[in-house]
Order: sequence, then C-alpha cells, then structure tokens
Amino acid sequence: RRAEAVCIPAIHLHMTAATMQVSQKDFEKAQEQLKLLKKDPGNETKLKLYALFKQATEGPCNSPKPGMLDFVKKAKWDAWNSLGNLSQDNARQKYTELVSSLVSAESADQKKNASPEEGRHDGYETILVTTKNNITKIMFNRPDKKNAINDKMYREIIKALEEAGKDDSTIAVITGNGDYYSSGNDLNNFTKVQPSEIEKMARDGAVLLKEFVGHFIDFPKPLIAVVNGPAIGICVTVLGLCDVVYASDRATFHCPFSQLGQSPEGCSSYLFPKIMGLAKANEILLFNKKLTAAEACDQGLVTEVFPDRTFQKEVWARLEAYASLPKNSLAVSKQLLRSMEKEKLHAVNSKECEVLKERWLSDEFVNAIVSFFQKKSKL
Amino acid sequence: RRAEAVCIPAIHLHMTAATMQVSQKDFEKAQEQLKLLKKDPGNETKLKLYALFKQATEGPCNSPKPGMLDFVKKAKWDAWNSLGNLSQDNARQKYTELVSSLVSAESADQKKNASPEEGRHDGYETILVTTKNNITKIMFNRPDKKNAINDKMYREIIKALEEAGKDDSTIAVITGNGDYYSSGNDLNNFTKVQPSEIEKMARDGAVLLKEFVGHFIDFPKPLIAVVNGPAIGICVTVLGLCDVVYASDRATFHCPFSQLGQSPEGCSSYLFPKIMGLAKANEILLFNKKLTAAEACDQGLVTEVFPDRTFQKEVWARLEAYASLPKNSLAVSKQLLRSMEKEKLHAVNSKECEVLKERWLSDEFVNAIVSFFQKKSKL
Amino acid sequence: RRAEAVCIPAIHLHMTAATMQVSQKDFEKAQEQLKLLKKDPGNETKLKLYALFKQATEGPCNSPKPGMLDFVKKAKWDAWNSLGNLSQDNARQKYTELVSSLVSAESADQKKNASPEEGRHDGYETILVTTKNNITKIMFNRPDKKNAINDKMYREIIKALEEAGKDDSTIAVITGNGDYYSSGNDLNNFTKVQPSEIEKMARDGAVLLKEFVGHFIDFPKPLIAVVNGPAIGICVTVLGLCDVVYASDRATFHCPFSQLGQSPEGCSSYLFPKIMGLAKANEILLFNKKLTAAEACDQGLVTEVFPDRTFQKEVWARLEAYASLPKNSLAVSKQLLRSMEKEKLHAVNSKECEVLKERWLSDEFVNAIVSFFQKKSKL
Repeated sequence: RRAEAVCIPAIHLHMTAATMQVSQKDFEKAQEQLKLLKKDPGNETKLKLYALFKQATEGPCNSPKPGMLDFVKKAKWDAWNSLGNLSQDNARQKYTELVSSLVSAESADQKKNASPEEGRHDGYETILVTTKNNITKIMFNRPDKKNAINDKMYREIIKALEEAGKDDSTIAVITGNGDYYSSGNDLNNFTKVQPSEIEKMARDGAVLLKEFVGHFIDFPKPLIAVVNGPAIGICVTVLGLCDVVYASDRATFHCPFSQLGQSPEGCSSYLFPKIMGLAKANEILLFNKKLTAAEACDQGLVTEVFPDRTFQKEVWARLEAYASLPKNSLAVSKQLLRSMEKEKLHAVNSKECEVLKERWLSDEFVNAIVSFFQKKSKL
Repeated sequence: RRAEAVCIPAIHLHMTAATMQVSQKDFEKAQEQLKLLKKDPGNETKLKLYALFKQATEGPCNSPKPGMLDFVKKAKWDAWNSLGNLSQDNARQKYTELVSSLVSAESADQKKNASPEEGRHDGYETILVTTKNNITKIMFNRPDKKNAINDKMYREIIKALEEAGKDDSTIAVITGNGDYYSSGNDLNNFTKVQPSEIEKMARDGAVLLKEFVGHFIDFPKPLIAVVNGPAIGICVTVLGLCDVVYASDRATFHCPFSQLGQSPEGCSSYLFPKIMGLAKANEILLFNKKLTAAEACDQGLVTEVFPDRTFQKEVWARLEAYASLPKNSLAVSKQLLRSMEKEKLHAVNSKECEVLKERWLSDEFVNAIVSFFQKKSKL
Repeated sequence: RRAEAVCIPAIHLHMTAATMQVSQKDFEKAQEQLKLLKKDPGNETKLKLYALFKQATEGPCNSPKPGMLDFVKKAKWDAWNSLGNLSQDNARQKYTELVSSLVSAESADQKKNASPEEGRHDGYETILVTTKNNITKIMFNRPDKKNAINDKMYREIIKALEEAGKDDSTIAVITGNGDYYSSGNDLNNFTKVQPSEIEKMARDGAVLLKEFVGHFIDFPKPLIAVVNGPAIGICVTVLGLCDVVYASDRATFHCPFSQLGQSPEGCSSYLFPKIMGLAKANEILLFNKKLTAAEACDQGLVTEVFPDRTFQKEVWARLEAYASLPKNSLAVSKQLLRSMEKEKLHAVNSKECEVLKERWLSDEFVNAIVSFFQKKSKL
C-alpha cells in the first residue's frame, strides 16, 4: 500500500509534466501547505521532498558525498543526487504536485473518518475506537507507518483499554488498519533523542512500556486479537496476554530483539516458554525466527488461522456470537484465569522493563539502531 | 443406546396392541411396580409414563396450554397432548407394557451385574469398582443418564478414589459404561432446589465439588482416564489432573460453562492454559468450543487417540503392561511430579469453587438453566 | 561402529592364523600391553580376551556351567565355551593379535586427537572441548560406550560448563561423538559398588547429579543441544534445560526410569509437564515411552529435526549465524528467561535427587539393575 502511494503520483507527474508549469508562488504555497499536514508522510516521502526542494532551489546536487557513517546526511545526499540533471522548473513542479497529493490524501482520510461511523469514540488520533454489538474494537490506525507504535499511540492504546474495560461491551478486540497488524515499537522514537537525553529516554521508555503491558495484564474482560497482517516485536509479545488470537494466513510473527541489541518484553520471557516450551520459544525470542501464521498456531500463540480472503467475515461472525454470551460469566471466568498468574505477570513485566532500560543504554543497541537506519536509508 | 431403549418397546407395543387387552388390575399392578424401580428411567420415559397415565385415566388432553416459561408443566402438557385421541384402553395397555419393559430391563441388568465379576467392590450404586491384574477400575455406571454425575455419584467417586489410593493396585483407571464417558454435572441437581434453598444448594455444591476435585489432586498413584465417548464439563476438566488420558475417536470434549452462566472448575482455569496456552484454552473454557478427540490430543489434553473399534483392546493391553512395572517406583514418580504443583492446585480448586458458588446465585445462571430445560423438554 | 571394531580384527585373525605362530614371550608381552591400555575396550572385547586367555592357558572349557542367576560367571563361561576345541596355540595367537589391534587403535586415536585442532581445550578425557567462531563445543567422547556418562564424565562436563560460561564465546553447544548422543547414566557406576557401600554410593551419586543438573540451570549464555543420535535418561531430561535443541532424524528419546526402578531427574518432573502437558509427559516419564525425533519435536522438547544426511551442515550453519548476533544481548535475554524459573528449578532439582537417592536404596532398583545386566550379558 505504501508502494502504491509513492507510485501513483509518480506516474501522474510524468504524464502532466509537459503540459503544465507551476509558478514560484505555487511552489511557496506548497511549502506552507506542507507545514500544515497533520500526519508525518514518512521517511521516504520526506527524502523525496527534500531532494526536490534542493533541486528546485539549488539545481543538481553539488555538495561532496558524506562519509559512510553519517547515515542521515548520506541518505539526503543520495536522494538529491538521484535526481541527476532534472531542471529546477521540473523539480519545483514535482515538489508542488507531491505536496498537493499529500494534502488530498489527508483530507480524503479525514472525510472518510469523519463519516458518521456507529459508536465511534472521540479523542483518538493514532487508533480508531468503536463500540457495536457488545464489542469494543480498538484498531491501530497508522497504516502508512505499518501501524508502528509511537509514544502517542502507546498512550492512546492505554487509554482505550481503560475505557473498554469499563464500558458496557462484552468483549474487546484489537486489530490493525491496512496491510499490517503492527510493525511494533516505532524506532523513530529513538532517532529523535539527543545524546544527552539518552538516559531520560531509556527511563521514560521503560515506564511507558511497563504501563502499556500492565494494561494488557489487568484487562478485565475477554480481549481478542484479530491479526490481519504482519506483526513485529511488542505487538507479537503481548499476544500472549490476549485471550484469543485469530490470524489471517497473511500474518507473520517476528521478534528481532537480539538483532536490534534488545531483550524480550510483553511478558514473553515468561509466557512464550510456558505456551510452547523453551526449545521453541528461544528460537523466536533469542534467535529472531520469524513465524508464519500456521507455525504460530502450531506453537499455541495463535488460536486459529483463516484464509485472508474470508478472514474478516469468518472472524467477525464468530466474535458476534461470543459477544452474545452471558457477559458477567465471561468476565468472571476471564478474571479467574488471569488471577492465577496476575502477580507473576506484573513481576515479569517489571523485570523485563528494567533489563530493557539497560539494553537501551548499551553500545550494542546503539550500533544496531544505526545499522538499521543505514540499511533503510538506502532508498 | 438410549434411543434404542425407547424405540424397541415402541415397536413391540405397536405389533401387539391389537391382539391383547390389559385389565384395570394389570394397570394398577403396573403403577405399583413402577414405584419399585431402583433406577430413575429418565425424563423422556417419565414424561411418556405421565402422558399415558393421564390419557388412560382422563382421556385426551383437556387442560389449557401452560405459559412458555412454565417449562415443566409445558413439557408434561406437550407429552399428554401428543397422544391425541388414543383410547383410554390403549393408553392403559401401553402404560402397562412400558412399565413391564422397564422392570425386565432392570432385572436383566441386576442379573448381569450380580454375575460373579472378579474383584468387584461392594457398596456402590452409581459406579462399578473392580480390581484385577493390579488395576483398580472405577466405571461411571449411569449409562441411561449418559453417566451424568449426581450428588450420590460425586460421593461414591470420592470414596472409590480413597479406597483405590490405599489398595494394592499399581494403577487406577476411570472410564464410563455405555456410549458416553460422562455428560458431567447432572443439571437435575439444580432443578429440585426450592427458591428458599438456593443459597444452601450453592454452598453445599461448592463444598462437594471442592472435595471431589481435591481427591483427583491428591491421588497417590498413576490415574488413567479411558475416555470411551463424549465427555462434558467437570469430566473434561479433571482430565487435566489425570496422569494419562486415552480416548476413543468417538470421544468429544465440551465445557459449556459460559453458555450455562457458570465458570471453569477442576483446576482447568490453571491447567488448561498451562497445557495448551491461553489462546487455545480460552476457546474451550470461555467460548464453549467442543473439541474432537484428535483436537484434544493435539492440544495435549489427551495422550493418544484410538479407533473406537479397537479402543478397549489396545488400551487395556497397554494398561496391563503398565501395571506390571515396579509399583513403588511409579507411585513415587507420580507423587514427585504432582508435588511440584500440589499446593497451587489446591489453591486454584478453592478459588474456582468460590467463584462458581457466586455464579450459582446469579441471574445469568438461573436464566441459562431454565433455557436449557426448555430446549430439552421439547421432546 | 562398535560392531565394526569387533568385526574387522576377527576377519584379520582368520586370514593370518595359518601363516604365523606367536611365541610364549609374545603372549606374555601382550598381557603386559593390555594393562597399559587407557580405554576400557568394552565388555564384549573383554569377554573375548578372557575366553582366549583361558583357552590358551587351560585348553577347552572344562568348568561346570554356572547357574542362570550368576550372570557374570555365566557370560564368561559362555565365551570360553564358545571357543570349542580351538587349540591353545591358536588361542594364544588370537589373543596376542587382538591385544595388538587394540593397542594400534588406541595409538591411532591419540594421534588423531593430538593433531592440532583449533581451539582445543586441554585436560579432558571423556569429552572434547573446543572453541571456534564464538562457539564453545562440548562433545561427549566415549563413542565405544555410547557416550554413557560415568562419574569422571559428569565431573568433566561440570568443569567444561563452568569454563564455557566464563569464556569469550557467544553460545555453547553440547553434542555427542559417534552414533549416539548419549546413553545416559553409565549403569556400570552401580555394578562396582559393594553391598556395604550402597548408602555411600546413593549419597555421593545424588550430590554429583544435583551439581551436574545445577550447572545446566545456572548456565549464563545460550546453550544449544545438537542431538546427533539416540539419547537416554539424564541426557534426555536435561534437554529441557537447554535453550534450543536440534535433532537428527536418527535421534530417539528414552527415559526408562520406572523400568529401572528409578524416578525422573534433570528437572523433568517439572519441565516436561510444563512443556507438553501432563498427559504426554507421563507416558515418557512414568511409562517408558520412547519418542522418535519427530514426536519429540511435536511435544516441544526438540526445536527442529533435520535429515541425518544434512544434519551437521545445516545445524552448524545456523549456529554460526547465531554466534554472530550481539553477544551481551543474547546473554542478558537468556538470563532473563531463566530468571523466571531459576529458584523453582533448583528446588525441583534438590527434590528429585532426594527421591532418587531413596530409589537407589530400594529393592525394586536392585532387582531392576540385576535383571538389566542379566539380559545384557547374554551375548
């Protein structure tokens, strides 16, 4: 989906480039419009905008190539340099059109979201929360970011879980909007941090994570994950705290903790060995093994897998049946099951966050993140 | 098997109805014989007897149709009304023949059971207990009730487990007589309760259940379940406390707790997630999923599944081999494994019984039971 | 492999018997050389040597056949008697040649092992320890004894684990040399014990076992088992304490505890039910069920199974990739996972060793061991 978003404007630009010309005024207006966008358009688009702006205002790339390790500068230079001898006029035009397409996309999104959807809860930006037929649905809603969870989204999910725990619904459901379930912790959370703030980042991050996971532990009614696509990191681990997990056969489950110099969270260091045994859990938690939906189901992390074609239909029919069962009986039973483990789970969560905080201050982690963004910035 | 029991006398009646006539004296004698039956003939047969008696003594159904919610009266009225214009003579004859067939069946049963079966333990009515080849076998023996467990049967199983724990046998086996393993808690336990006695019923029920499950937790030698057919509720959950579980491929495993407004027991709220992970356990314990034998085996609740045709033969050959192993070694090993969990299991059992006691006083439970019997009474 | 070692010299002897003659001096020299062998040549070879020596010095077997229950004497008598009318000269010659072949084999072995293998650790006799590419490999090295673990080997594995935990390697690997992974506890440990020393043997054995298992519990970095062939007893149970277990499809997993009058160890009484549920665990731990590699993988004891043909190649490629991951991240994560269970595991280990100590003093155990060696001595 992200690929399309980049691709379609490009074709459009190509077809219209010869027939229209944008004024300097249009170009300046585009720069203003860009500042008003509410959603971050993503690194790739930002690099493209940067390159077109440079090309439009300064012409072909003329600065020296940065060193290999200065990866942000290198990415920008690569983007600018890739435009070759594109004329400044054409760059201005492409820039203006790209901004225009972003503005249209955003307003279309807002229109769609503003349409009167039944039971829509107000006050959320990164997630969509609705209640219907005794089901409260919490939907990750940053599809252009593969539903990566930034700090704001962590807080909104916490708030939504608190509300769903208290409302009249019989069950609550977590799912993702778009192709991904969620790509997990948004690593951009880390890139904005100044060296002097690393300790604070690690401390605050650990507190937020602990609170986030704690809300899954304490959730007082059946909580069902509807995994519509790939899931990564924290979004995989907290599945162990959900009561039922239904997955599309498009879903995958990946916990690249050691690869990124980190350590397991979401109570997975306790629950994954409990669910599937240590021998299976460690390939996932220590050695970065990515599971298919069928494998995750075999290992007991997923309740059942459905063909993607019929996934939503089959799952929601089942959920509606569940939501018509005696509500208190379900809540009491869920709490009974959880009560056996609650104290232990909170202790595990604390311990995991403590260990992870230390990891975030380690050289291994910093090197792994740098290396991650270097790979990603090679557009 | 129950279907046959109802069906064969019916055909018999049909063939003989034209050729013989019963006197009023025979009819009265039948009424006396009925009182002497030791086994409850089951709701369906009792409704049939009621209807024939009314038809014989009062003629076609003439009372007003009862309200939808008065389900016992409704069932009786339906049964009587279904006889249409059957003559009083014919009704008397059918009544007499039906009683006669019940008496014959019972005396045949008694003869069979009275035949000198090796190692038969005395003093049980609802179960059959035998010891042979170092194996003590406890067999649920209410086949016409699908081996549903009423209060008496709970107490007899407790007593049998106590005795089997102390006797000379190497292993103990639990199984069911007839087509069912056991349909679980006999819901008729609840229907006899007067509104004023509900609290007492809930209190006593919780005490009895806790003692019953406690005997499975504390059983000191290998305890093997031979699941010959469908299993429901408490009979499924305590399988988690058995050491080995062999199942016929005819067996199914069903825990309709929330559907009946109740909550999990038998330590299943702790053991099922431990055995199969929360994602699988919750479909069973919260959402009433019925498992096939193969599914129960995949989830680790069942050790192995056998084709029904060879089930008894294969399983008993294996059990006899087990029973020839060093007896103390087995007992010590079993106790070692159990000792890791014993304290936790007793705590879980207490908690579950407490929660269930509250459930039995809830509106959701009362409504679910009423609805259950309404469906059942539509013969 | 053992079969070959016995077979090849036999053919050789046959071909040369007619053409050479050994002197009494050569025969005496062979007797001296035999005493200098460092490796026990195994029971079969020892019986053959015994028989040839008797035949050479006393002629055909002339002593009365021992009773069925005196199984050691019976085995010796059978061996001697099987030589029939072999002449004393020929017996002397065969004896001398057999000793010579044992001496050659041992010196070839030493040469091979003395070749400069990269990273070979000194000071081990029963195991081979090497470090290469961030991997420390601990290889059971008594292939002619199916890698059975005698007291010396227990101590050497303990020492190797201690060193591997502290060295610079990222991961540690345990595997077996030859066809077997390991046949478990060397039962010959028991046969050397005098009746007066049984209590001391049981006490010392329990202390050693507890220390051995304790080192698996406390191992501070990822520990991976590469199960190259059949595994028995203690070598199966401690797999539950390894982080990842890769197995050849030739591997089998067998815990004949109750058959030998013993009880489970290696934390299996806690970990096996945790990994696979009680119903599956008990068939293995109580009822001596031998698992195939595929079954062990299904039950979660094994991470993945590979065809024997490509086993070493596929597994080591994977292990080298693992060993290149961030080292501290792996160690910290492993310790995090273990920390959830460490206290419990040590308590389980203590309890198991205590129970096993009592078992070793029981009649059931003594009878089972005698019966085991009787069967084995029927060559």
